[in-house]
Amino acid sequence: MTVLAKLESSRRSAPQSAFDRLHGLVADDLREVNRIILERMNSPVALIPQLAGHIIASGGKRLRPMLTLGAAKLCAYHGRRHVDLAACVEFIHTATLLHDDVVDDSDLRRGSATANSLWGNQPSVLVGDFLFSRSFQLMVADGSLKVLDILASAAARIAEGEVLQLVTSNDTETSESAYLEVVTSKTAALFAAACRIGAVVAERPSAEEDALETYGLNLGIAFQLVDDVLDYSAGQNKLGKTVGDDFREGKITLPVVLSYRRGNEEERRFWRRTLEEGIRRDGDLAHAMRLMGNHGALVDTVERARHYGAVARDALGLFPDGVYKTLLREIVDFCIERLH
Amino acid sequence: MTVLAKLESSRRSAPQSAFDRLHGLVADDLREVNRIILERMNSPVALIPQLAGHIIASGGKRLRPMLTLGAAKLCAYHGRRHVDLAACVEFIHTATLLHDDVVDDSDLRRGSATANSLWGNQPSVLVGDFLFSRSFQLMVADGSLKVLDILASAAARIAEGEVLQLVTSNDTETSESAYLEVVTSKTAALFAAACRIGAVVAERPSAEEDALETYGLNLGIAFQLVDDVLDYSAGQNKLGKTVGDDFREGKITLPVVLSYRRGNEEERRFWRRTLEEGIRRDGDLAHAMRLMGNHGALVDTVERARHYGAVARDALGLFPDGVYKTLLREIVDFCIERLH
Repeated sequence: MTVLAKLESSRRSAPQSAFDRLHGLVADDLREVNRIILERMNSPVALIPQLAGHIIASGGKRLRPMLTLGAAKLCAYHGRRHVDLAACVEFIHTATLLHDDVVDDSDLRRGSATANSLWGNQPSVLVGDFLFSRSFQLMVADGSLKVLDILASAAARIAEGEVLQLVTSNDTETSESAYLEVVTSKTAALFAAACRIGAVVAERPSAEEDALETYGLNLGIAFQLVDDVLDYSAGQNKLGKTVGDDFREGKITLPVVLSYRRGNEEERRFWRRTLEEGIRRDGDLAHAMRLMGNHGALVDTVERARHYGAVARDALGLFPDGVYKTLLREIVDFCIERLH
Repeated sequence: MTVLAKLESSRRSAPQSAFDRLHGLVADDLREVNRIILERMNSPVALIPQLAGHIIASGGKRLRPMLTLGAAKLCAYHGRRHVDLAACVEFIHTATLLHDDVVDDSDLRRGSATANSLWGNQPSVLVGDFLFSRSFQLMVADGSLKVLDILASAAARIAEGEVLQLVTSNDTETSESAYLEVVTSKTAALFAAACRIGAVVAERPSAEEDALETYGLNLGIAFQLVDDVLDYSAGQNKLGKTVGDDFREGKITLPVVLSYRRGNEEERRFWRRTLEEGIRRDGDLAHAMRLMGNHGALVDTVERARHYGAVARDALGLFPDGVYKTLLREIVDFCIERLH
């Protein structure tokens, strides 16, 4: 705990979040990840680095590659492979974001114009394919069939989850378990893979690989559920997410599933009109948020997230105590409490 | 030549094309490729096999996997890996077709409704991603990093070529060499990879890998150039391509490049109006075909294709004579002469 104590004493004003502390600990590796990303997204076709650079710059806080780096460090890994593989994870994530924005016809992502709104759907689809292929080239250069298997399977599962979401989208009768299946595939599978490969590069026993996979999977589910809540929570928030996107896209998320099931017939008509039939008027979003409040749908979605968070934290139990174990556990709380 | 002689004597009516004869020789393997494709495109998300099944059924004559099978046999390979890898090649090709049709906003492919016209762009993008991931899972199961490298690089190059085509599309000033760069990336790179892995599974020396790559690359260029000509040639043809698609999509292909450069100012205005500005009227396609005829643009595009075809045939020179060498050479002529 001495490293943590030092970190704590070096802070200037507000206490640093677990995210910031982990970010600080892996800062050198993360800079290297960014360098590899910039280097590998290059192409003589200028539009590719332009568009890829835009999405990578606006793609968030590099949580997934940080998990790969943190997981490798938790496993006392001292090589360099985790850096390349963290870049692979971010490439897959970025390719997915590009295709997601096309599929959702989104104009904004975290407050910035999406690539498809700036350049059109066509290059977004193709540059997504390019980044996806590049990520596999990077994995091939790393040379581990085990890692390739983990990330190729995660990629297939993400696509499966996205199709499942499309099929069930606008269906207000979606069950909680069906929705969890979507979340597990489209979001949690990559978190799980990102963490698992940390143990793989460190050549740890399969029990530790499994533990890190369980950690990542449950953290990913908790992360997505909180994301769903943020979409109906007033105001901007720490990770820059805006309010009402899911509602405007007619997405069925857990707060909707709970509100629909707990609502009366009039309320269900409201959900069907706004999300199934896509007929939305001024004030509908505010009304949706009121209904969620009345039924405790947001509070209970956070409770569900806390459950998965607890499973994630416990999954790390078998690792020896240390700063990375502490921070990876605290990251779980950070992901859930970023609401406030 | 006895096998060929036997094949020849067993034909019933019209002489079989080289394509049919190669198809007959690898029929058992090709059935196995189809079985693997059906098995591996499966998913609990029903829309995935539905949509994938549609595109795979309408995706053509399996020329690319046949090349992998034929190349492996040319290298006297006796194992089973070529079958799995031929399925990988077809999966990559299929994923590319799905995304192409979204990018081109196509309604028809080889006379059948495209997946995007039947199910919308969204699942086409996502099922493309799924098939792409599946192909990497299959490669991982095969276990060769060398094959993974070849196919991941080909996939990246295809995406690069598609973006390049997008950037240069509607630009009537596109040069012949810029267009060849597009063709080499978007079409020929996968032909080259499909052939090269035939030598890789047979563990042949790198000179034979290179020879098969050169064969595939040049065959792929010839194939695409003839495809471009078919798009402006009256009537349906052997491989089911329809006429005028490229013109309606404003695509700049070699017949256009040649006609534009050989045309007078009035003709160039016509090409700019129809392909750059996208203002097309009744009779424009017929006029475009007339201009191409006047300038010998179609005949000369076929001449260019014959040049690449000759390079492809010569690339096989170092292999010992035999039925596969003969057929792979004759396939080149078949691809060029499918015009008639």
